[in-house]
Amino acid sequence: MRPYLTDPAAIYAESFATVRREARLERFPAGLDALAVRVIHACGMIEVADRLAFSEDAYEAGHEALAAGAPVLCDCEMVAAGVIRSRLPAGNDVVVTLNDPSVRERAEVLGTTRSAAAVELWRDRIEGAVVAVGNAPTALFHLLARLDDGWPKPAVILGFPVGFVGAAESKAELAGNPRGCAFVALRGRRGGSAMASAAVNALAAGLPEEAP
Amino acid sequence: MRPYLTDPAAIYAESFATVRREARLERFPAGLDALAVRVIHACGMIEVADRLAFSEDAYEAGHEALAAGAPVLCDCEMVAAGVIRSRLPAGNDVVVTLNDPSVRERAEVLGTTRSAAAVELWRDRIEGAVVAVGNAPTALFHLLARLDDGWPKPAVILGFPVGFVGAAESKAELAGNPRGCAFVALRGRRGGSAMASAAVNALAAGLPEEAP
Repeated sequence: MRPYLTDPAAIYAESFATVRREARLERFPAGLDALAVRVIHACGMIEVADRLAFSEDAYEAGHEALAAGAPVLCDCEMVAAGVIRSRLPAGNDVVVTLNDPSVRERAEVLGTTRSAAAVELWRDRIEGAVVAVGNAPTALFHLLARLDDGWPKPAVILGFPVGFVGAAESKAELAGNPRGCAFVALRGRRGGSAMASAAVNALAAGLPEEAP
Repeated sequence: MRPYLTDPAAIYAESFATVRREARLERFPAGLDALAVRVIHACGMIEVADRLAFSEDAYEAGHEALAAGAPVLCDCEMVAAGVIRSRLPAGNDVVVTLNDPSVRERAEVLGTTRSAAAVELWRDRIEGAVVAVGNAPTALFHLLARLDDGWPKPAVILGFPVGFVGAAESKAELAGNPRGCAFVALRGRRGGSAMASAAVNALAAGLPEEAP
């Protein structure tokens, strides 16, 4: 077997150097460039940089919210598992309500998915929160509908639902009508938990691994 | 906001129908076609079907191992979080050793990453196991090196490490030299936990959501 790189610092440095060499990052404001780098690093796809939509204030809104102790509301356990707890600035809660015992019945009553019904349980913590959607389009759609109903606003919505039914549409809705809260969204079918977690980690701490 | 699909069964059915309509699945043997569909569904990218390498026996090897109670060894918590426990046929253990207290020191002693050092702790459970690597190229490289050292063989290796340093190379090594154990690998930089979990879920239970 050929030799391979085993030094973690060298691996990170070479990874991030590759991303910076290949990706078009000029259009990103400070802070969001690091977010784009982390998202690319998480998925191995340079070209997703070109499909990231964002509000100009997304980095500041998310960074300051986390510094002030805001919770991170995630649509699934995989997103929560990818958030680097030691990088969160204020021991922030990372909340997943998908497996709450009430969710299955709520979903039946509301006639929707469990992922969407789980968003109902965010109501008391949504104001000023960092929202990370890495799986379910219906979770993002449901949140946007609740904001239209008058729910208090989160600080930032990180929109990375994935797939063939509703993913592109829910992210277009997020990007097309910011509803007065900051956002980042990966347009199209692609997305996923790893990208959503990476976006949270970037808002929390930027790219401390980048220097070798 | 425009209406959107909220019925979970309809969403699954439309998703999988889209994948079957758009993806080239003809070359996959029975069982691995469902695995390819699940992997595509997890990442939103039809074209990954064309980059999946596999041994012909990968589905049977993995399916039978799980039915017989084999553990699922994962390189990170996100992969474990994506395994649908209710679909595992024998209450199989889902094992992540990355956060074992001994791993940091092992990594220093071995001069490698924590992900690779964590593989050392798979030694007693590797024989006949289902291995799912969804993050770290060094974990896959380290396992392959240990197999070359004479470790007992797992039943199947699902290789989905992601990124710019070692991901493509480690998966090429896996696909180029099966070492007498079955494998699936996504060639190139792309990969990730969601795809690795999806592959496990396909070996466990195929596609029960596909019928509306």
